[in-house]
Amino acid sequence: MLIVMDRAASAEDVERVVKAVEGLGLTPHPIPGEIRTAIGVTGNRGAIDPAALENLPGVLEIIPVSHPYKLVSREFHPEDTVVSIGGVGVGGNRVAVIAGPCAVETLEQTVTIARAVKASGADLLRGGAFKPRSSPYSFQGLGKQGLEILAAARAETGLPVVTEVLDTADVELVAQFADCLQIGARNMQNFELLKAAGRTLKPVLLKRGMSATLEEFLLAAEYVLAEGNQNVILCERGIRTFTDFTRNTLDLSIIPAVERLSHLPIIVDPSHGTGKKNKVIPMSRAAIAAGADGVAVEVHHRPQEALSDGPQALTPDMFADLMTQLGAVARAVGRSL
Amino acid sequence: MLIVMDRAASAEDVERVVKAVEGLGLTPHPIPGEIRTAIGVTGNRGAIDPAALENLPGVLEIIPVSHPYKLVSREFHPEDTVVSIGGVGVGGNRVAVIAGPCAVETLEQTVTIARAVKASGADLLRGGAFKPRSSPYSFQGLGKQGLEILAAARAETGLPVVTEVLDTADVELVAQFADCLQIGARNMQNFELLKAAGRTLKPVLLKRGMSATLEEFLLAAEYVLAEGNQNVILCERGIRTFTDFTRNTLDLSIIPAVERLSHLPIIVDPSHGTGKKNKVIPMSRAAIAAGADGVAVEVHHRPQEALSDGPQALTPDMFADLMTQLGAVARAVGRSL
Amino acid sequence: MLIVMDRAASAEDVERVVKAVEGLGLTPHPIPGEIRTAIGVTGNRGAIDPAALENLPGVLEIIPVSHPYKLVSREFHPEDTVVSIGGVGVGGNRVAVIAGPCAVETLEQTVTIARAVKASGADLLRGGAFKPRSSPYSFQGLGKQGLEILAAARAETGLPVVTEVLDTADVELVAQFADCLQIGARNMQNFELLKAAGRTLKPVLLKRGMSATLEEFLLAAEYVLAEGNQNVILCERGIRTFTDFTRNTLDLSIIPAVERLSHLPIIVDPSHGTGKKNKVIPMSRAAIAAGADGVAVEVHHRPQEALSDGPQALTPDMFADLMTQLGAVARAVGRSL
Amino acid sequence: MLIVMDRAASAEDVERVVKAVEGLGLTPHPIPGEIRTAIGVTGNRGAIDPAALENLPGVLEIIPVSHPYKLVSREFHPEDTVVSIGGVGVGGNRVAVIAGPCAVETLEQTVTIARAVKASGADLLRGGAFKPRSSPYSFQGLGKQGLEILAAARAETGLPVVTEVLDTADVELVAQFADCLQIGARNMQNFELLKAAGRTLKPVLLKRGMSATLEEFLLAAEYVLAEGNQNVILCERGIRTFTDFTRNTLDLSIIPAVERLSHLPIIVDPSHGTGKKNKVIPMSRAAIAAGADGVAVEVHHRPQEALSDGPQALTPDMFADLMTQLGAVARAVGRSL
Repeated sequence: MLIVMDRAASAEDVERVVKAVEGLGLTPHPIPGEIRTAIGVTGNRGAIDPAALENLPGVLEIIPVSHPYKLVSREFHPEDTVVSIGGVGVGGNRVAVIAGPCAVETLEQTVTIARAVKASGADLLRGGAFKPRSSPYSFQGLGKQGLEILAAARAETGLPVVTEVLDTADVELVAQFADCLQIGARNMQNFELLKAAGRTLKPVLLKRGMSATLEEFLLAAEYVLAEGNQNVILCERGIRTFTDFTRNTLDLSIIPAVERLSHLPIIVDPSHGTGKKNKVIPMSRAAIAAGADGVAVEVHHRPQEALSDGPQALTPDMFADLMTQLGAVARAVGRSL
Repeated sequence: MLIVMDRAASAEDVERVVKAVEGLGLTPHPIPGEIRTAIGVTGNRGAIDPAALENLPGVLEIIPVSHPYKLVSREFHPEDTVVSIGGVGVGGNRVAVIAGPCAVETLEQTVTIARAVKASGADLLRGGAFKPRSSPYSFQGLGKQGLEILAAARAETGLPVVTEVLDTADVELVAQFADCLQIGARNMQNFELLKAAGRTLKPVLLKRGMSATLEEFLLAAEYVLAEGNQNVILCERGIRTFTDFTRNTLDLSIIPAVERLSHLPIIVDPSHGTGKKNKVIPMSRAAIAAGADGVAVEVHHRPQEALSDGPQALTPDMFADLMTQLGAVARAVGRSL
Repeated sequence: MLIVMDRAASAEDVERVVKAVEGLGLTPHPIPGEIRTAIGVTGNRGAIDPAALENLPGVLEIIPVSHPYKLVSREFHPEDTVVSIGGVGVGGNRVAVIAGPCAVETLEQTVTIARAVKASGADLLRGGAFKPRSSPYSFQGLGKQGLEILAAARAETGLPVVTEVLDTADVELVAQFADCLQIGARNMQNFELLKAAGRTLKPVLLKRGMSATLEEFLLAAEYVLAEGNQNVILCERGIRTFTDFTRNTLDLSIIPAVERLSHLPIIVDPSHGTGKKNKVIPMSRAAIAAGADGVAVEVHHRPQEALSDGPQALTPDMFADLMTQLGAVARAVGRSL
Repeated sequence: MLIVMDRAASAEDVERVVKAVEGLGLTPHPIPGEIRTAIGVTGNRGAIDPAALENLPGVLEIIPVSHPYKLVSREFHPEDTVVSIGGVGVGGNRVAVIAGPCAVETLEQTVTIARAVKASGADLLRGGAFKPRSSPYSFQGLGKQGLEILAAARAETGLPVVTEVLDTADVELVAQFADCLQIGARNMQNFELLKAAGRTLKPVLLKRGMSATLEEFLLAAEYVLAEGNQNVILCERGIRTFTDFTRNTLDLSIIPAVERLSHLPIIVDPSHGTGKKNKVIPMSRAAIAAGADGVAVEVHHRPQEALSDGPQALTPDMFADLMTQLGAVARAVGRSL
C-alpha cells in the first residue's frame, strides 16, 4: 500500500499516519519528496480495509498495491484448479462444452435437447428451472418441477446437470438435484447466496456481473472459497457498454487476465454474451482460441417457440456444426474437445 | 410493436407472421415498402414477450413501441405518488433528507449521529445493519443487533428508520424494525428479494443497479408494485462508466426522465454516487436543482474511524452546512426543505 | 511515481531499476517488503514518460503519483482563471450563458435567434458554420458564409461569437471572424488542431470528448496552454455510456473535480449532453447548482425546421424561462447571472 | 422509418405529419392503434435526416428502420471487398499480418524490426511518423524524416508501408510515401481528414473510435467511400469501458457484425486493444478465430527503450511465435496465413 500525503501536509500529519500504520501491525516507510511525502506500507497480507487511514488529516490518496483476494489467487495456489462436475473435469487440457435450453419447459423438450447435444458431444447439460427475468410478467421458470425434469434428462443421457439458483431459500433444493450450482450475473454480488452456495461444497459456476471489474469478480469467487469450497468455475458472459449490435460486449481479454491472477478455470457464455444466434459460433471459436476452458451455449430444437431467449439459441444442427468447428480450434491451440 | 422483415423475406414469410400476430390476439398492419415489408402491431397492452415472433423465418428485427412496465408508469397512474415513511412524505413539494452512518457500529455512534442530523433538520435516519461488501474480509454489519440499535436511535430522536435488507431470509426481521426497507444496487435484480419486500407492504427504497437501464430500473420497481405494494421510492446512486475521478458516475438526467415516465418519487444518493466527501455537497445541490425529491447522505462524527465507506461520509458540521445550502436551492426551484 | 517489482524480481533487477531512475535525474527510494519490493521515485516534475522504466526486467507495474499536466493545474496556478470573450468574462462570480442555433442556416434565422437570446439576457452567441456530422449526407454547414452571418448577428446585437473550427486549414479564417474558437468533442484529441487554435491566442472553448477521462481532458487543454494561450474554457457535454434515455450521460461531477485540479473555468452544454429538449432546463439548473461557470444551450425559433439537432433546441420562450430559473439557482449558490 | 405519435396527439397532428412525409417525397402508412397512432414511412433510400419530422407537434419518437449508410453496406455491394496494399490483398481468404514499431525512431531501429517481421512472415510494415500523444510533452514522432525511414525500410524488405496521418495538411505528404494511410481512433470522426484521405484514392486503414458505435464507424468509412475511394479496411482496436485490466476492451463481436452489414474487410489491433504484451498473442488468436481478415501488432527489438507504447510491443521472438500460432488457428477456420 502507498499512502500519498497532500503537498500541504504537516510533519505532524505524517507522524500521525506513521503511528496509525504501526498501530495496525504494519511497517511504514516514509519517502520525503520535493513536492510531497509518500509512505510505503509493507507487511500487508491481503485483507486490510484502508478506511482507517484514508481519513486521517493530510492524506491525499491511498494506492493499494496488493489485492484484497487471497484464496482465488495464483500467488496463493500456483497450479491450475480442475473442477469436477459429476466426473467431468473443467479446467484441464480438455475444453468443456455445456449445452441445453435457456429454460426447462417440458420433459419432452428437455430430454429431446439433452439427447441432441449429447449426440454431438456436449459434456454437461444446462437448463434453467428458476429463471431471473427483467419483467415480472415474463415466464419465471418451473421451479422444483424443472429440477425433476433435469434429473430425468440426466438419467436418460448421463450428462451431469448445471442449473441456476436465485435465492438462499432454494439452495438446498437445487443442490439435491444439480451437479453444479450456477450463480447468475445479476446475483454475482448477492453475497448471502454466494456463502450459501459455498457451504454446499458443490461445484459453483459463477457468472461475471454485467458491470463487474475483475477484482470484484475474483472477490465474489473468494466468498465461495472462504466457505471451504474450492470448486468454482468463472464464466464471462458479456459486460454492459455503449455498443448496441450485441446484447452485451463479450470481454474475452479477461481470459488471459484470469489465467495470470487466478488458478480457477474460466469458461465463456457466448449466448448471453452476444444475444444473437449468428454471433454464437464465431465468438465460441474466439473464446477457445483465447484460452477459455470451455463454453456454455443455449440450444433449442424449436427456438421460435422458446419461452425465453429464443433469439440466441442454436438449433441442434447448428450445435453439431459448432462442435466440429470448436474441435478444430481446440486442436490448433493444443487442446482437445 | 413493429416487426421488420428481411428484404429477402417471401410472401409466405410475411403471411406466417401475420397469422402468428393474430394468434396472439393482436392486430397486424402490414406495410409493404420498396425494399422490405414492415408489420405494425396494435392491441398490445404492455406485457407481451416478443420471443414467439422474433424467430419466425424472415423476421429481421422486432422494435418494441410500448414498454413492458405498467403499474409504475405515469400513463397508468398520472398523479405523483407520495410515499409515507413513518409519517414523513417523500415525493411531494417538500424535499426529504435521509442521513446517517453507512454502517451501524455501536449504540453510542448511531445515537450521536442521529441526534446531530436531527438537529440540522434531517427527516429520516439511515444506517446499515446488514452490509453488502465486495470482500468477504470486510466488516459485514451487526445484523439483528444493528436493527435494535437503529430502533433505539429512532426512540431517541423520533426519526423513522431506513435500512437495507440483503436476503429473503431476513425480510421479516428487518421489516419488524425498519420503517422503510432499502434494496441496494447490487440486489436491484434480485427478483425474489423484490417480491418478498413487496409482500411486506412496507415502503421500499430501491437503488438503481450500477449498470441498469431506466427500463430495467422501472421493471424492478414493477416487481414490488405487482405484489400490491405501491410504496416505492427510486434512488439514483451512480452508474459504472469509464470515468475514474468519482467512484461511480451520478446520472442526474434520470430525474427528469423518471418524472416523465413514472409517478414514483426519485431521490439521489451522492455519497455512493461520487464516493468522495468533497463532491457530496455540490452534487446534492445539483440533484435538488434537477428536480429530485430528496437526497440520502452518509454522515459520521468520526469518519476516519468509520468501519465502512469513511471517505465519503460528511461530518455533522458539513451536514449542517449542506442543509443550509439545500434549503436555498430548494427554494430556488419552488420547493421547501 | 511508485515502481512495484514482481515478487520474483531478483536483487539485480532492483539494482538495475534503481540505476535507471538515477539515470533519469530522479531519486529512487527502495522499500523492501515481505512479499515484494517497491521503489518510490521523487524529483519528478510532471512530464516523464514511464516507458523507459516499465519494460525493465522484474518491473510489475508503474503507479503514477503526480500527473502529466502542469500549466492547467491549480498546483501551478492557484487562482481561478477568468477568460474574457469579447469583454464577457467566463469564470468569475457571474454565470455566463452562451446561446444560439446549432447551425447557422440563414442571416434571417441567425439574427432572429440572436436578438431573442440577447433580449432574455444571453451573454454570448453560438452557432455552427462548420458542422461535424456523423453522416456525409447530413447538412455540413455554410462555411465562410456562415461566419459572415455570425459577424452580422454580432454587429446587430453586440453579442460576442463562439463558433466551431474543424480543421487546421480553417483556423485562420475562423479566428478572423470569431471571438472564441470552439473545439468539438470529436476533435478533443485532434492535437494538431489544438496546437493551431492555441497559436491564435484567441479564447478556446474545449469540449470534453465522449470517452475522455479527466486527465485526457486536462491534457488536451494543456496542448493549448503549451502554445502560450491560457484562454481555455472547458465544457462538459456528456459522455458515452450504456444509458439510452439521453443521447449522452451528462457527467456533472466533473465540475467539482475540475475545480479542485485546475484553475480553468468549466461550463456545461446540456443540449448535446442530453439531446432532449425536455431535459435541457432541469440539467442547466443542476449544472449551475453543481458550480459550473456557465451553460451553452441551443435555441431555435422554428425547431421543427432546424437543419440539425432540432430535437434538443429550446424555443425563444423556453429560453426566457430558462434564464429566469437559472437566475434563481445562481443566487441560491451565491452567484449572479 | 416509423413515426410514433404521442397518445394525446390529435387527428390534425397526425394529418400534419402525413403531409410532411409526403412533402419529402415519401409514402406515409398510418397505423391507428388502441392507445396511439404510428405512421410507417416507406420509400426512404438511406440518407434522410429525421430532424424535419421529429419536432412536429404530437410526434413522440422517430424510429429509424433503414440505416443512413449506403456505399459501405452489403445490401448495396454483396461481394466481399479485397483491398490491395502495394499488391498485398486484405479481405480474401488469406489472413494479413501488419507488424512494426509503434513509432519510427531511427533508420537502424526501423530496418532491424522490418527485417525481423519479414523473416517471420509479416505482409505489411507499420510504424508511426506522425504520432498522436495524449500529452504535449510525449514524443510526437519524426514527421517527414520518419516517412523517409519507412520508405527505406520498404526498399530494404519489400514490405508495403502503413502509416498514420493526423492532419489534412499532411495528407499529400504521407500519401507520397505510404502504401496505405492510417486514420487513428482519435480521428475517426475528423471528417475533413476522412474526406482528404478519401480523395487520395490510396487504401485507408480506419480505426474504430474508442466510443464509436458500429453505425458511426460505418458512417466514418462512408465518408471515404463517398469520395470515390472504396479501398477501406476497418480496424477494431478496443473500446473504452469500465474494465481496468486492459487499456481498452477489445470488442471482437464486431467482426461477425461487420461481416453481416458491410463488404469491407476488418482487422484487429490487439496491441492497442489490450495495451499489454501478455494479452497480444491470445487476443490475436481470438481475432482470427472470430473471422478477422488480419491483425496489426506492434513489434520492437528493444521494447524497454521504445519511445512510445513499449509495454505492448512484442519482441521479434514473440512475433515469430505469434505467426506460428496464428497459422494454426487460420487453418482451423479454413483460411491461410
